[in-house]
Amino acid sequence: MRFATLDDGSLDGRPVLVDRHHGRCVDIRPRADHLLQVLQRWDSLYGELQALQRQLDAGQAAQAFDFDPRLARAPLPRAPQWLDASAFLNHGRLMEQAFGTEPIPLFDTVPVMYQGASDDFLGPCQDVQLPDLAHGIDFEGEFGVITGEVPMGTPPEVALDHVRLLVQINDWSLRALGPHEMATGFGFLQAKPSTAFAPLALTPDELGDHWQDGRVHLNLAVQWNGERFGEPHGREMHFDFGRLIAHAARTRRLSAGSVVGSGTVSNVARSAGSACIAERRVIEKIDGGAIRTGFMRDGDRVRMEARAEGDGGRGPFGVIEQRVRVG
Amino acid sequence: MRFATLDDGSLDGRPVLVDRHHGRCVDIRPRADHLLQVLQRWDSLYGELQALQRQLDAGQAAQAFDFDPRLARAPLPRAPQWLDASAFLNHGRLMEQAFGTEPIPLFDTVPVMYQGASDDFLGPCQDVQLPDLAHGIDFEGEFGVITGEVPMGTPPEVALDHVRLLVQINDWSLRALGPHEMATGFGFLQAKPSTAFAPLALTPDELGDHWQDGRVHLNLAVQWNGERFGEPHGREMHFDFGRLIAHAARTRRLSAGSVVGSGTVSNVARSAGSACIAERRVIEKIDGGAIRTGFMRDGDRVRMEARAEGDGGRGPFGVIEQRVRVG
Repeated sequence: MRFATLDDGSLDGRPVLVDRHHGRCVDIRPRADHLLQVLQRWDSLYGELQALQRQLDAGQAAQAFDFDPRLARAPLPRAPQWLDASAFLNHGRLMEQAFGTEPIPLFDTVPVMYQGASDDFLGPCQDVQLPDLAHGIDFEGEFGVITGEVPMGTPPEVALDHVRLLVQINDWSLRALGPHEMATGFGFLQAKPSTAFAPLALTPDELGDHWQDGRVHLNLAVQWNGERFGEPHGREMHFDFGRLIAHAARTRRLSAGSVVGSGTVSNVARSAGSACIAERRVIEKIDGGAIRTGFMRDGDRVRMEARAEGDGGRGPFGVIEQRVRVG
Repeated sequence: MRFATLDDGSLDGRPVLVDRHHGRCVDIRPRADHLLQVLQRWDSLYGELQALQRQLDAGQAAQAFDFDPRLARAPLPRAPQWLDASAFLNHGRLMEQAFGTEPIPLFDTVPVMYQGASDDFLGPCQDVQLPDLAHGIDFEGEFGVITGEVPMGTPPEVALDHVRLLVQINDWSLRALGPHEMATGFGFLQAKPSTAFAPLALTPDELGDHWQDGRVHLNLAVQWNGERFGEPHGREMHFDFGRLIAHAARTRRLSAGSVVGSGTVSNVARSAGSACIAERRVIEKIDGGAIRTGFMRDGDRVRMEARAEGDGGRGPFGVIEQRVRVG
């Protein structure tokens, strides 16, 4: 199933299923009021919604209408929790060099994860309003999962069973504010403004072989102001999403609809490019001795689309395409 | 006004107003479905709810019924954000010694704050289920505010205008997990399981002179297994709640219903005692050379009640009284 949420002025938005061409959609009301409710009532709604998806894909859903991704909000405009890891170790190690911080202890055996704000997620085409260019405005391309209810203490071996939906994320970051917040030990807060999502949230079966071992096996194609910035692949994720969910749920339960993120997608091969500016900057410094790239400016655009290698078609999550507005 | 939320099996609970003796209450439905909705529609509901509060206090609310705090959930069982500071610097400085961590940079000029889980707040009399005694189970007595909508970039001078309700908090902490999470720079996650709240959320006028300069001027009386543990006063809070709200909203907006916490209430005078075990332990070590007090055990009870000095009456927020269950 391919879920999206359209803007209808309400807090949680209008929930729809989208067809395989991303051209048509159908309202899932009155089966559920919004996507969060679908996640809360997953087992009882699953069969009925799957049947509606099949009708839509066959062109037989009576109330279907055109799907306009510019009207899409985040699939969950608000979620119970947003827990973002740093599971691509190549990215984390480069960021240590970028920030000049101490190596993170146990980085390759225990996931690191911060809790972000989950009350104000942005849609795929929403402008990003930020207060100050001097904060070092950066995008971060990620993959994520939306969970069902996860009991406290769920072990990694079964945690993947709680994955309900897969998502594609742009985790906006303010790089000038990060190092101080890390040094306090209290973690990221001001450095992490509202996070944005691609329009579609997919059941894992929608990705076929591209969902493997609890990882999204797709390239994340990132463009900055229309130019290729990077296309790293999801397979180099060190901890799989099962391990990340178990980490998050070690001393708490996760409510249905919690979002767990991979951290910035990153590959060891330099040819892959990067999914955030901070990483490119530190690579420039390491490989060439000097940083050449600045952070984002007012009016800058970023585009992100996950794609199978060699596939010229539409990315399964749709496209994130956002513009920065400062001041 | 004195708001509480009763358990009726629903996600957000049944919202009530409580009389000045905490003996009777009245449902605020159908004016609002739950307390979060009251905060979302504050200006339009304020007058009507205030009139209902007056009726109740005069014994003239037709549908009033007995208020049983044992049936109370957290005033907001789920909230858009939970942002907890460490604004009692005495506590923070003692904790640096307890954890053996580096001094927090700019600690007395820039607030520190972590984002906690806000999807699963506990009621005042709910058992606390935790997985492992070895995690160092500790309570933390705090004060907090619930905000209205706070625009991004709200300055400290006007941030206090966004305070809607005051609350009393028990911020459960797992002390053995904190130092590693601080060392990663990503901040507290596993070290902070679900947070608990006293039954009543109060409009600031309910505290009279005890709400001053953006601080709660009350003692927080803490008992552990029936014995006095501490009674620190709220006046030594270094950053007021206006400053904390502004810090939280510097690069994001806060949705109506966001909760901002003071961090553990703590006084310089040793006679005040402590509002958490970790602080007592480090004081024992500093003053006597050895830690004598262990963390909580299965079945242990903690009781917290904010009171005016010399006032033998009921605390305005009611009482937190919780039992720990391990395994």
